[in-house]
Amino acid sequence: MDLLDQLFRSEDVEKVLSDRACLQGMLDFEAALATAEARAGVIPSSAAVAIAAKCKAELFDVGELARGAKLAGNVAIPLVKALTTLVAQGDKAAAGYVHWGATSQDAIDTGCVLQLRQALALMASDLDRLARGLAELATKHRSTIVVGRTWMQQALPTTFGVKVAGWLNAVDGHRERLRETQRRAVALQFGGAVGTLAALGDRGTDVAKYLAENLTLELPEIPWHSHRDRFAEVATTLGLCVGTLGKIAKDISLHSQTEVAEVFEPMEKRRGGSSTMPHKRNPVASAVVLSAASRVPGLVSTMLAAMVQEQERGLGGWLAEWETLPEIVSLSAGALRWMAEMVPQLQIDAERMKTNLEATHGLIFAEAVSMALASKIGKAQAHEVVETACETARKEKRHLRDVIVADARAQSLLSAVDLDGLFDPLRYLGAAEEFVDRVVAASARSV
Amino acid sequence: MDLLDQLFRSEDVEKVLSDRACLQGMLDFEAALATAEARAGVIPSSAAVAIAAKCKAELFDVGELARGAKLAGNVAIPLVKALTTLVAQGDKAAAGYVHWGATSQDAIDTGCVLQLRQALALMASDLDRLARGLAELATKHRSTIVVGRTWMQQALPTTFGVKVAGWLNAVDGHRERLRETQRRAVALQFGGAVGTLAALGDRGTDVAKYLAENLTLELPEIPWHSHRDRFAEVATTLGLCVGTLGKIAKDISLHSQTEVAEVFEPMEKRRGGSSTMPHKRNPVASAVVLSAASRVPGLVSTMLAAMVQEQERGLGGWLAEWETLPEIVSLSAGALRWMAEMVPQLQIDAERMKTNLEATHGLIFAEAVSMALASKIGKAQAHEVVETACETARKEKRHLRDVIVADARAQSLLSAVDLDGLFDPLRYLGAAEEFVDRVVAASARSV
Amino acid sequence: MDLLDQLFRSEDVEKVLSDRACLQGMLDFEAALATAEARAGVIPSSAAVAIAAKCKAELFDVGELARGAKLAGNVAIPLVKALTTLVAQGDKAAAGYVHWGATSQDAIDTGCVLQLRQALALMASDLDRLARGLAELATKHRSTIVVGRTWMQQALPTTFGVKVAGWLNAVDGHRERLRETQRRAVALQFGGAVGTLAALGDRGTDVAKYLAENLTLELPEIPWHSHRDRFAEVATTLGLCVGTLGKIAKDISLHSQTEVAEVFEPMEKRRGGSSTMPHKRNPVASAVVLSAASRVPGLVSTMLAAMVQEQERGLGGWLAEWETLPEIVSLSAGALRWMAEMVPQLQIDAERMKTNLEATHGLIFAEAVSMALASKIGKAQAHEVVETACETARKEKRHLRDVIVADARAQSLLSAVDLDGLFDPLRYLGAAEEFVDRVVAASARSV
Amino acid sequence: MDLLDQLFRSEDVEKVLSDRACLQGMLDFEAALATAEARAGVIPSSAAVAIAAKCKAELFDVGELARGAKLAGNVAIPLVKALTTLVAQGDKAAAGYVHWGATSQDAIDTGCVLQLRQALALMASDLDRLARGLAELATKHRSTIVVGRTWMQQALPTTFGVKVAGWLNAVDGHRERLRETQRRAVALQFGGAVGTLAALGDRGTDVAKYLAENLTLELPEIPWHSHRDRFAEVATTLGLCVGTLGKIAKDISLHSQTEVAEVFEPMEKRRGGSSTMPHKRNPVASAVVLSAASRVPGLVSTMLAAMVQEQERGLGGWLAEWETLPEIVSLSAGALRWMAEMVPQLQIDAERMKTNLEATHGLIFAEAVSMALASKIGKAQAHEVVETACETARKEKRHLRDVIVADARAQSLLSAVDLDGLFDPLRYLGAAEEFVDRVVAASARSV
Repeated sequence: MDLLDQLFRSEDVEKVLSDRACLQGMLDFEAALATAEARAGVIPSSAAVAIAAKCKAELFDVGELARGAKLAGNVAIPLVKALTTLVAQGDKAAAGYVHWGATSQDAIDTGCVLQLRQALALMASDLDRLARGLAELATKHRSTIVVGRTWMQQALPTTFGVKVAGWLNAVDGHRERLRETQRRAVALQFGGAVGTLAALGDRGTDVAKYLAENLTLELPEIPWHSHRDRFAEVATTLGLCVGTLGKIAKDISLHSQTEVAEVFEPMEKRRGGSSTMPHKRNPVASAVVLSAASRVPGLVSTMLAAMVQEQERGLGGWLAEWETLPEIVSLSAGALRWMAEMVPQLQIDAERMKTNLEATHGLIFAEAVSMALASKIGKAQAHEVVETACETARKEKRHLRDVIVADARAQSLLSAVDLDGLFDPLRYLGAAEEFVDRVVAASARSV
Repeated sequence: MDLLDQLFRSEDVEKVLSDRACLQGMLDFEAALATAEARAGVIPSSAAVAIAAKCKAELFDVGELARGAKLAGNVAIPLVKALTTLVAQGDKAAAGYVHWGATSQDAIDTGCVLQLRQALALMASDLDRLARGLAELATKHRSTIVVGRTWMQQALPTTFGVKVAGWLNAVDGHRERLRETQRRAVALQFGGAVGTLAALGDRGTDVAKYLAENLTLELPEIPWHSHRDRFAEVATTLGLCVGTLGKIAKDISLHSQTEVAEVFEPMEKRRGGSSTMPHKRNPVASAVVLSAASRVPGLVSTMLAAMVQEQERGLGGWLAEWETLPEIVSLSAGALRWMAEMVPQLQIDAERMKTNLEATHGLIFAEAVSMALASKIGKAQAHEVVETACETARKEKRHLRDVIVADARAQSLLSAVDLDGLFDPLRYLGAAEEFVDRVVAASARSV
Repeated sequence: MDLLDQLFRSEDVEKVLSDRACLQGMLDFEAALATAEARAGVIPSSAAVAIAAKCKAELFDVGELARGAKLAGNVAIPLVKALTTLVAQGDKAAAGYVHWGATSQDAIDTGCVLQLRQALALMASDLDRLARGLAELATKHRSTIVVGRTWMQQALPTTFGVKVAGWLNAVDGHRERLRETQRRAVALQFGGAVGTLAALGDRGTDVAKYLAENLTLELPEIPWHSHRDRFAEVATTLGLCVGTLGKIAKDISLHSQTEVAEVFEPMEKRRGGSSTMPHKRNPVASAVVLSAASRVPGLVSTMLAAMVQEQERGLGGWLAEWETLPEIVSLSAGALRWMAEMVPQLQIDAERMKTNLEATHGLIFAEAVSMALASKIGKAQAHEVVETACETARKEKRHLRDVIVADARAQSLLSAVDLDGLFDPLRYLGAAEEFVDRVVAASARSV
Repeated sequence: MDLLDQLFRSEDVEKVLSDRACLQGMLDFEAALATAEARAGVIPSSAAVAIAAKCKAELFDVGELARGAKLAGNVAIPLVKALTTLVAQGDKAAAGYVHWGATSQDAIDTGCVLQLRQALALMASDLDRLARGLAELATKHRSTIVVGRTWMQQALPTTFGVKVAGWLNAVDGHRERLRETQRRAVALQFGGAVGTLAALGDRGTDVAKYLAENLTLELPEIPWHSHRDRFAEVATTLGLCVGTLGKIAKDISLHSQTEVAEVFEPMEKRRGGSSTMPHKRNPVASAVVLSAASRVPGLVSTMLAAMVQEQERGLGGWLAEWETLPEIVSLSAGALRWMAEMVPQLQIDAERMKTNLEATHGLIFAEAVSMALASKIGKAQAHEVVETACETARKEKRHLRDVIVADARAQSLLSAVDLDGLFDPLRYLGAAEEFVDRVVAASARSV
């Protein structure tokens, strides 16, 4: 375990992305290949059985393979060699059929697809869980008033439920995107040295078909080895998802500020402590998610740039993916896990939200007043009147309502009853609650 | 026109992305808003008519709006102000209803959506055209033998049709992705100051519904102002597409090298000349496409990073999109146009492709020989034998076939007839032609 | 003028980066080349005079050159052609010597260097101005107490001067980096078609020497056309600088939040208003700077990736720089200008800073108390005691001092006088003021 | 060891970047801190001795610290806790002085600086070695003629020495940049919780001074914890360096193509083999270097974006650096090692370089002919004449010289002797050899 793994990553996805799992992915390919070739009559059935029996990652020495990879330029070559040796120990003839007609890239890419299938399934389930958590939170705070902030300034009242519904709606979009991406990305790569399956003569497409069946993978129209859009799309889809997670974390961290104090990460003992300041409770989950949101975009750009691969197999670009794509999956999955776990435990201080509405001494009701006046004197003029009143309120540190009341013009247009309404946040929520209901309903449908 | 616009961009998409079109997008929003509000009984019908009549970009002074944007922090504020003034000249009462209940972001985001709708439609049509061109080219060269190259080294024979089918298949993937993205991205943004439509009281959702109808835009469950995944997805989808375009251009540029000389960009008079070398015919189209493929990934990363926006409207992140997203669209569209125009005019030298098959003196048939031997002595041993023969051929500059013939072991296993077959590229194409047919058929279906 | 130019860019640097200035850069190269070649006896002096006389950007038609660039793949080719035509109108013989022995890249790269020289000089001067503004601000608020915030939580008291000194110290680092970069980047590119100056026979190095003298540019040991580190370093140096500007803007925007309200951007009439909320005063300068800090990193990554250029002139990578580097300069210069202008006008509310110290009811003095106890009972135990006290204070909403006083153990170790000191921010500033003095003094030295 | 470590990374630098070394960096900080504080009279000397005795990474359990990091949000907190426990086992009183007055970030940042110091020193030495290798290669091939290629097309003759000198000159630039960066980056971070050293009262600056001395680190004017330009500059400097390494690798891979075959990576047994094609010798070193050049730019953009950190310690941005900066160092160091080892072993085929000069049937001498004519009929007209001749030569597949000879006009202006000279690559090298000499001399001086 690396020092920062527990902090940044999620344990089950790490298992799927481990060196061992990477080897197993390639070995699953080799086993399924042999089986498919036996079925197609290309190699003896006994060979397929013998080969499949040795396709277990724990039988291989990572250190030795790593040294072999340095010489060969990829891991599949030393792995195939080691597998051949291993098979030969039990069945010399069978050893001759290991990796028959395939190329390194077939094993590497398909092996990676098998890992991605597992990792993305885990992430899909975390996304579902996150959506459920958000739906509950949005419903609970459907009418909890909080000030909306734009440009990091208090703007107007809204409800906390609306904010959470916004998060949920974005998360639902990512659930949809992920499904589309899974459908495209979880596909067999099998083309042989240059993508023609030439080494299998006229049996190539049959072998491919059986191989895809064995691995329950989509069979594409043509080997995709030199077209990396399937992998790059996994990167971009996760990149989009992490962007939203970062937005949610940013919101939480802003709400958590000492001076705002409306929303808190769950307070476990010692969580987010400081080595020197005994009072600190740092928002660790938000920090981890935000760090992922900082890191993934650059990694996505690498995946996109690496799509420009030369001819039938690229030089450099292909290698650039090997650590980059798993890193994107790992960081995204880690961020998603933190978020999915944090949301149901968020602590909401609805009282403080209410108190904070008073911070501007009425200025956040400026739009309400302005709209009320606008229906009488037009929008531009109303904006002007209220803008001036706000300026006065600010300078003289008075409540906006008092300034408005003292303004002859405004007073002639607005009654005390009007003003009561205009300065009541409960009466200035527009479609807030309806939005929450719609989003929660739509989310439930998309399960 | 900027100095490099003609080189890097496509004229019709530039029109859609121009300052004028940007203003028109916001003005279309304002006109449709007024009309929707009149229908909802929020503002007088006469006001809607008067407002709509002035929503024409050519009535506004870009320079003045630019100066206003510096002060206000966005373009919508000075535009609304200028529109109000303009409407007031003809109908003072109507002026009071301009931009009623909306916020700057509604106009900016929805205006941008309207521009994107046009730009993406143009790109979809160019993608279709490119697919058609590739399908024709793949079909024509279904059986044109060319050497496949991996790691920038000659590997095995394939057909040029297979290569082009690979390009086509990837392009078809992008056509599908683009449709999904259009469906999600072409959606109304309308939420008022913080996303509650509070300024419209209980009429907000009706106005939103009519507004979406007026603009023929999808009506989302909730305003998405602070969730930028829709726009970021446009960026990633185009980023994926440009990656494939770059891959195709890279292939063409490698085929066009003086020493390879198999594929050429169309040769117009003076195209790709040099200021000093009279013989140069530089592959300009490939260069432009490759430059786009270099530039777009970094811009996509900006869009992803900018998703982390604060609260109900971000500070900085939102502004970061304003030039970045159009730039991505512009560069992608330019690259796509160059590619769509170039493909049908590519010059293919099938003769030279054949000649180049001889460059290795038989080494590219090493796999064929190895597989033939493998069925007799096992794969590992066969690989070893042929590897040694290749080494000898290379060192002694002999043809691989001659070395094989001189090898006692190999000779005993392979007849002269065998060898004829093994060194015949036509007999080592595997499923090449079938792949071409499948891809072309699938592409035709996806129209 | 583009719609967002005034908002995002700085006028004088835009002039230096304009199409006109780009042409003038190349024309300055052509004029200086002719003059150098005349001095070296390569071309007639009269030709040099005739050529130089026409090297004025305003004599050329941008639209026509743009169209020519599309065909040729760069702007230098149509420019040289147009210049030749122009010179021929007055002196047919002279026209034969235009661009003698040079290649497009010489003109484009050296022209760009001439633009960069001007732009970087303007930026250096803005950096100096910013440093002066920060030095003044740091000095003024050397002892203005403000709470330090870590992880977006109140931590300990510091002074506002320390914070500003931190900004200043980083800015001073960028001034140093910029000088180093200018020294390396402001260098002549002159190599002819492939970098050998072959077309000038044995006069190549003399011409290069005179040319560098004419343009007052550094003469490098070898033409650098295919090594883009000089340009990429301009990108990274500005990228670093914008990172710091973004950090400063981020701080300001956090201090400006409604609930914090300690620092404000200058309040001009209408600056940062809203189209709907009359009370808004959005921090426009911070937003612009932050948007630059979001955009530049992706652009820098493009410049770095584009360094991988093929052979004696790249395909794609070179073109990728043409708009990217100027964009980096433009955005950086714009951000720097906003910051340099804003800093001297920042409004600091020292009173509010003091009030905000009370927000935690003493928790920010937890470290002070803990250190005081630590000297008696060890650090770990002290941390534990105070951590528990903080927990109690938080839960029971009491002042930390009260909780400490009520704690038997703590009370036995700390006197009332001790506690007075421990809860006095003025007595917990450590080296704050000394740091300010050191930084301001160092900055003054670095002018 | 991870599967791809041997392929992508360099063993000694990995040791410096390992988890163990990371812990040791922080522990070195803690030991030096205790020692400095004893000297300053802040803690007892005996405590310092007891603490320093336990500051050995091998005494700590990585797995436990990793679990602690998840809770705390960083590694320093559990490390300090574990160190305290460890010290307490031997000297309970001393344990109370562990990490006295410091904060987590002091340990983490300074620990990282100590790692960077070692890693950068190793890289500086590899850069020196690479420069020596390149200088030798350039000198050896000072006059080895090779065709220069621009836009991936044959352009003009140059020498291989010039190309290598270009590489060398760029590498020398990076040696200079690295020295500047080392000077700035290898600096102490020590500020306490918010950068005031408040917990040390009036002893803070003395402790800082002694601490810097103990660690032989630069003492900055002010703690730089929230200003990340020092670390980000390490990233950009390495990013620039890797860009040049990528350019060199790209050149080598292009020269190594089957159809070009001028330069080869060293051929070890099995190096760069294929799992299926016995004849393959893939350029592994170039591929690894190019993959680093693809990956580092995106990582650099992350470091730049992460500079925008909040207040006295950022949320998210800081964490984003922890794995990103070491990854940049690791990939850069790996690429550099491969390159430094490969260059002295490159196999150059000077004969093939000569043969390839014939590939265009004289077209690469078009500029020479054009310049010769230009001196008689002006450059534009000469360009036109030769351009037409090239077109004819290409179409009719004749040698350019034959076409020129057959052209009445050209024939009247150029004698047979002239033509002999014009088509002799040895006589069209301009300043090539002088450039090599200058660069090699300058490089020697910069040692």
